[in-house]
Amino acid sequence: MEDSFSPYFYFLDRELYCEKTPIKKIAKKFGTPVYIYSKKAILDKIKEYKKAFKDYPTLICYAAKANSNLSILKIFQEEGLGLDIVSGGELYRGLKAGFSPEKIVYAGVGKTDRELMDAINAGILSFNVESLMELDVLDQLSEKAGKKANISIRVNPDVNPKTHPYISTGLKKSKFGIDMEDALKAYEIASKKKNLNIVGIHCHIGSQIMDVSPYKEAVEKVVQLVFKLKKEGIELKHIDIGGGLGIKYRPEDRPPHPEELAKVVIPYVKETGLQLLIEPGRSLVGESGALVSQVLFLKDKGDKHFIIIDSGMNDLLRPAVYQAYHHILPVEKKNEKVTADIVGPICETGDFFALDREIDNLKRGDYLAVMSAGAYGFSMSSNYNTRPRAAEVLVDGENFYLIRERESYDYILQPEINEKIQGEVK
Amino acid sequence: MEDSFSPYFYFLDRELYCEKTPIKKIAKKFGTPVYIYSKKAILDKIKEYKKAFKDYPTLICYAAKANSNLSILKIFQEEGLGLDIVSGGELYRGLKAGFSPEKIVYAGVGKTDRELMDAINAGILSFNVESLMELDVLDQLSEKAGKKANISIRVNPDVNPKTHPYISTGLKKSKFGIDMEDALKAYEIASKKKNLNIVGIHCHIGSQIMDVSPYKEAVEKVVQLVFKLKKEGIELKHIDIGGGLGIKYRPEDRPPHPEELAKVVIPYVKETGLQLLIEPGRSLVGESGALVSQVLFLKDKGDKHFIIIDSGMNDLLRPAVYQAYHHILPVEKKNEKVTADIVGPICETGDFFALDREIDNLKRGDYLAVMSAGAYGFSMSSNYNTRPRAAEVLVDGENFYLIRERESYDYILQPEINEKIQGEVK
Repeated sequence: MEDSFSPYFYFLDRELYCEKTPIKKIAKKFGTPVYIYSKKAILDKIKEYKKAFKDYPTLICYAAKANSNLSILKIFQEEGLGLDIVSGGELYRGLKAGFSPEKIVYAGVGKTDRELMDAINAGILSFNVESLMELDVLDQLSEKAGKKANISIRVNPDVNPKTHPYISTGLKKSKFGIDMEDALKAYEIASKKKNLNIVGIHCHIGSQIMDVSPYKEAVEKVVQLVFKLKKEGIELKHIDIGGGLGIKYRPEDRPPHPEELAKVVIPYVKETGLQLLIEPGRSLVGESGALVSQVLFLKDKGDKHFIIIDSGMNDLLRPAVYQAYHHILPVEKKNEKVTADIVGPICETGDFFALDREIDNLKRGDYLAVMSAGAYGFSMSSNYNTRPRAAEVLVDGENFYLIRERESYDYILQPEINEKIQGEVK
Repeated sequence: MEDSFSPYFYFLDRELYCEKTPIKKIAKKFGTPVYIYSKKAILDKIKEYKKAFKDYPTLICYAAKANSNLSILKIFQEEGLGLDIVSGGELYRGLKAGFSPEKIVYAGVGKTDRELMDAINAGILSFNVESLMELDVLDQLSEKAGKKANISIRVNPDVNPKTHPYISTGLKKSKFGIDMEDALKAYEIASKKKNLNIVGIHCHIGSQIMDVSPYKEAVEKVVQLVFKLKKEGIELKHIDIGGGLGIKYRPEDRPPHPEELAKVVIPYVKETGLQLLIEPGRSLVGESGALVSQVLFLKDKGDKHFIIIDSGMNDLLRPAVYQAYHHILPVEKKNEKVTADIVGPICETGDFFALDREIDNLKRGDYLAVMSAGAYGFSMSSNYNTRPRAAEVLVDGENFYLIRERESYDYILQPEINEKIQGEVK
């Protein structure tokens, strides 16, 4: 089972490789914890998406929040994808990675004036507007900038994506979007704003979705609304159905293929003739990445065996926050198995990677790989316990590149000791 | 009720002050989100602890992980406190803030070789050792360094602190410490290590503890063990009972006073004649801090009212990770009340500060303060969604000082674009 977890992370002579590179070689060179990404895994996923949607005019906008490392963004930019951003920081990253603003869409319920202004000035493809008040503010700021802002309304199709409550974003009681029954009115209001240019409609139902049927339900509702808008004289250019396709976390997981998504979505969108936008994030990068750590100590307490590693919840928050399962592989296979809690160094009981997990009988100094960590891994990491954030490495066949260096203590402290600090510590 | 939430954050003419400084003044000067700390709140808490333990030789070691800002650490250093650290990064901070190594204790289940070596070379007061393997490694590294390391064994008293499972750290099934029945053997092993110097015993039962009775239970067990060790010829210098006292999060919370802790703990420790060490973190800084944010948008959906603010779960993780309650005050009082979800800009349903909370009817541009955010607030914050981390400001009467500047996009991206980066993006 372990051997077939991923075509990009596989065992050769009992040693774990990423593409053609032994993982141990990377860990020895850059230390641990280190995030390792397979470029081919990402490129192949892009190909899958492109192929699935090739028969219908579709712009695939990568959701930067999943993994916003500049070198990762550059891969998507070079492949001609668009970008889905949720902040001014992601806009900054996107432009730096070379994305054309005409391929950038910007969602999020809480955009600040500065963020809106930066995106107005950049001239992005679409603001995915989440409230009537945002429409007003965007109109005023656009006037100030002397530009017109392209907008879509994010509507809330009220479908249940059957995923973790924290990442279900299309339910009526959630903070996201505008309810379907209020959407027509929102478009009418938008159509009267002098500095707004209506270009589309947006929805996003959630994340880590393992069954495409909620998409069908959502897109059906959205398309009905598009026809209603047309009747009212409001013409759109695109329908953005958001992202959310799930990935394989457990060996037995069988996430939907992009083809399945295309099959349920395109027939409806086709009726409108509008361009389709999709916003995959996790499904493009999640399986491409592993968090590689070293075993620091082993410990037995009563009938419990603990494997203590040098990564913590500050490096990968998903187990603590979503009780998420991540598969864990040894970097060098052992002959024996053991049942263990695999835990980090942070002083919280929530700092674990796996509980009561059967795994190779790892020893001090051995390496292990926490799989499917390419999305919402590094991007959610912190300096909790003053732990420097991990290095990030991109593997390309036999080559590998440092794409983010491990943080130093001095880097972490820099904002507390520079010339602007007025306190007593300088 | 609002008016009496804290003596350090109070309303004057319907406006919220921190000490003698209007919070609005700080928010306008440094922008939002901003963490604001009252120096007097911290100094008063230090006084409370000093007074409570004044009749028994006690070293109060501030737990840096609660809030490790250099200027905050400096306050504790100047007041003569010791420091409880859990990483090499916190050692680095502690030394930079001026703490004498002889007042630093170092706990944590996963100390790396580099971290251990740094602390050996610094010559700290005590390594709070959490496993037999750590004893071995510490002995070997000390030999290499040509120094002796002072150690305590962290024992696990197996008491239930009745708090959130993630911050219950003294239970038998947890990764922390060595079980009581194995502790004697651990000390015997330690006593035979040439490069280790046994100085104490350590325990820590959890965090945000609202009833001191579990401390009584724990210290009773620890003292019994101390006598058993003495009988075996193993003499200690101190008993470290850890930290964990709770703070006021809800207006109705009545956390235990340090006096109560002293009263249950000192009688037992006194029997041994050993020095007492305590490690308060949250209870020293938690109530001193507020996270101040600005309202970006208001939004009504069905019967739900949303107040969308410019802070997110990246700034304060506690509600998402521990379902924690934080009291929220307006910075300027309104005449009307409203029931609202107070949420952040991050694209997750878990990004909330309060659900169905009665609060002043805030408008766009108004400020609010998330109270009791001085501990595990900034220290757990991240750059999720490429959001720059908040500024931190220390208030001292009418004066206030920037003690950490707001991060810039360039600062965040620095490790991805510097000269060491080998990828294609430079």
